[in-house]
Amino acid sequence: MQHKSFRNMPCPIARSLERVGEWWSMLIMRDALFGLTRFDEFQNSLGIAPNMLARRLNALVEAGLLERHRYSAHPPRDEYRPTQRGRDFRPVLIALLAFGNRHFAPEGASVTIVDAQTGVEAEPVIVDRASGRPIREPEFAWVPGPAAGERTRQRYARRPPSGTRAAAAQADPRIIRKGSPNEPRRKA
Amino acid sequence: MQHKSFRNMPCPIARSLERVGEWWSMLIMRDALFGLTRFDEFQNSLGIAPNMLARRLNALVEAGLLERHRYSAHPPRDEYRPTQRGRDFRPVLIALLAFGNRHFAPEGASVTIVDAQTGVEAEPVIVDRASGRPIREPEFAWVPGPAAGERTRQRYARRPPSGTRAAAAQADPRIIRKGSPNEPRRKA
Repeated sequence: MQHKSFRNMPCPIARSLERVGEWWSMLIMRDALFGLTRFDEFQNSLGIAPNMLARRLNALVEAGLLERHRYSAHPPRDEYRPTQRGRDFRPVLIALLAFGNRHFAPEGASVTIVDAQTGVEAEPVIVDRASGRPIREPEFAWVPGPAAGERTRQRYARRPPSGTRAAAAQADPRIIRKGSPNEPRRKA
Repeated sequence: MQHKSFRNMPCPIARSLERVGEWWSMLIMRDALFGLTRFDEFQNSLGIAPNMLARRLNALVEAGLLERHRYSAHPPRDEYRPTQRGRDFRPVLIALLAFGNRHFAPEGASVTIVDAQTGVEAEPVIVDRASGRPIREPEFAWVPGPAAGERTRQRYARRPPSGTRAAAAQADPRIIRKGSPNEPRRKA
């Protein structure tokens, strides 16, 4: 499946999606971090076509999230284990799990995260490691980093200083927003 | 673009991906949460084909992450604002940002999250809201929830009790792992 490459976009979200931003890749990582390692285990779990699974496994090895280990020479058989980079992907899956449980599980949670000792259900929230404070606006802000290029800096420079326009508009619908530089036009 | 539907999978990660698990959808949500609202703003930001953008915006409205607001009747023009559900998606983007900055920004961060008052860079980490403890194994575990079906329960029942097989194998490569119920076979 071809798509426009995000690899050269500076945005760290786009770069992550370039490597794992495909339905199957995220579910393969979910299964790999769960402990599945072998081709047929992934296939049984996902019901994915073998050629698609092979392609996604190769891409995840190439992106450095999985490592291939040959466990049988005759016949040749490989297994796939998460690397440190692959294990670092777990917070994305936890965030997706929490989001799915909150919004798309009307019948209750099918999978949940609990304290392994007490069994008490955890509520995942993203905080700043040093201060422990929840990362949310307006206490925290997204800003251009040291390696930001001109386009990223301009993008952030044009942004209203506090919160988003949309949030501001919801808070006060009387706010009159200026048109964007290019006249808005709904194309479809 | 057609793909196998994840909607009927019980896994909350799969269900989230069904709604937003597409490269463009996540970047549209990134831009919408940044404050962009209008069709041409998204198009300028993303360099996406208009028909694809229209399709993804419609899907995000249908999934309840964006709301459409008509701001001009003649000519008809809509803008798109994040709903509460859309705002709840932000932790997924923060986790992707942190992952991308850690692993795919060799030249340094292009975008980063800072304390809005002090400008000190934040380090996003997922914790349990009540206890403040980082959600990681083996302190926390993924378990079947109250709505788990038979397949999910079996899946977790077969799992080794602590950690993943892959993690165990890395910690002690002498561990001999049993074959999976279906004889492993690399299909491609």
